[in-house]
Amino acid sequence: MRTLFHLPLDPFSRKIRIVLAEKKIEVRLVVEQVWRKRPDFLGINPAGEVPVLLEPDGAAIAASQPIAEYLEDIAPATPLIPGSAVQRAEVRRLAMWFDRKCYDEVTRNLVGEKLKRHLAGEGEPESARIRTGYRNVDLHLSYINLLAERRKWLGGSDFSLADISAAAQISCLDYLGDVPWDDYLEAKEWYARVKSRPSFHPLLEDVVAGQRPVGHYADLDF
Amino acid sequence: MRTLFHLPLDPFSRKIRIVLAEKKIEVRLVVEQVWRKRPDFLGINPAGEVPVLLEPDGAAIAASQPIAEYLEDIAPATPLIPGSAVQRAEVRRLAMWFDRKCYDEVTRNLVGEKLKRHLAGEGEPESARIRTGYRNVDLHLSYINLLAERRKWLGGSDFSLADISAAAQISCLDYLGDVPWDDYLEAKEWYARVKSRPSFHPLLEDVVAGQRPVGHYADLDF
Repeated sequence: MRTLFHLPLDPFSRKIRIVLAEKKIEVRLVVEQVWRKRPDFLGINPAGEVPVLLEPDGAAIAASQPIAEYLEDIAPATPLIPGSAVQRAEVRRLAMWFDRKCYDEVTRNLVGEKLKRHLAGEGEPESARIRTGYRNVDLHLSYINLLAERRKWLGGSDFSLADISAAAQISCLDYLGDVPWDDYLEAKEWYARVKSRPSFHPLLEDVVAGQRPVGHYADLDF
Repeated sequence: MRTLFHLPLDPFSRKIRIVLAEKKIEVRLVVEQVWRKRPDFLGINPAGEVPVLLEPDGAAIAASQPIAEYLEDIAPATPLIPGSAVQRAEVRRLAMWFDRKCYDEVTRNLVGEKLKRHLAGEGEPESARIRTGYRNVDLHLSYINLLAERRKWLGGSDFSLADISAAAQISCLDYLGDVPWDDYLEAKEWYARVKSRPSFHPLLEDVVAGQRPVGHYADLDF
């Protein structure tokens, strides 16, 4: 069977867990505490980051977008980068937007400071970074809201890797109660639809030691 | 004809210029001074970044990896993400490594501070960032050196988007004379082979106002 090295509240690991579940690919989940810099894991992925997908033949695929593209190559029957070449480019643009911009501007500042730093034993959170995260969360919710007003799903008429990449980031923020849902009703309705997909359910059962999720985290009618 | 909005010393624009040339796709190049925040350009790409590929039918494709994947979709005859699914994943992993890690740790600190800040009229370079860039450049050259020792091209036995993404970053650093080539002879030999490809030649003719390239920049036997 395949193995996925992951962390429960790492948005990039979550992205791949959803992709695997949508494509109905079974996988054994192994939590990799990357801050321990385990030599065997560094041998598999010199970057020392999750997610890493280990294939039954020993091939290791690292980094979330390469893993997602790989799964699209080997399991094309449930396309998550669907449509024409231009539509696929729009899905990829949005996946990158959330992976890069939303992560750098929001998730890293909030989840990184509040949780990962604690787990990794790196000391107290930096309040300046947390403020930056809060300042930027509205920008990203506004953008999701705008896309959700105009389209059925974020990348177009079909559920896609754009929705998965966005929801992977947002779900980590939501675990901490850091999403101002009431100001973004279209985004909230979109997220409720993502949350209700069977592929998303395992993520709603994640609990991280020392930080319980907010009350509505696993609620489908939040 | 297609239009590519670009900046001469933007590594992501360079990556797409090389991909287009390798695939022999003609394009009209338009320099977009992104710091001017031209409303028409923001209408095409709300992120306000280059590169953007504008198709003859008006479709706009934004961000370098989505554009590269798009060009792979529409012009598969010259594959730049070649091989099996696992080999393609390795090419994509490396493309992301250079796009993200090398850019964040090196290129942004050196080219961004020394050149882009000047062009954009954003004041004096920050010396702390320049020091960070110099500190990290060896890490990235070592990694290229290691890959070049083990493989014909960085991603495997074929020239690929891994080489293009790496060379796009390195070429901007080399323009400024910031690559310690003498310490990394395998990397230097690899870069000489990339430089000698016809797809690379137009980049060697780029000159940016106020900052001439170092003497060996366009020299194929540097």
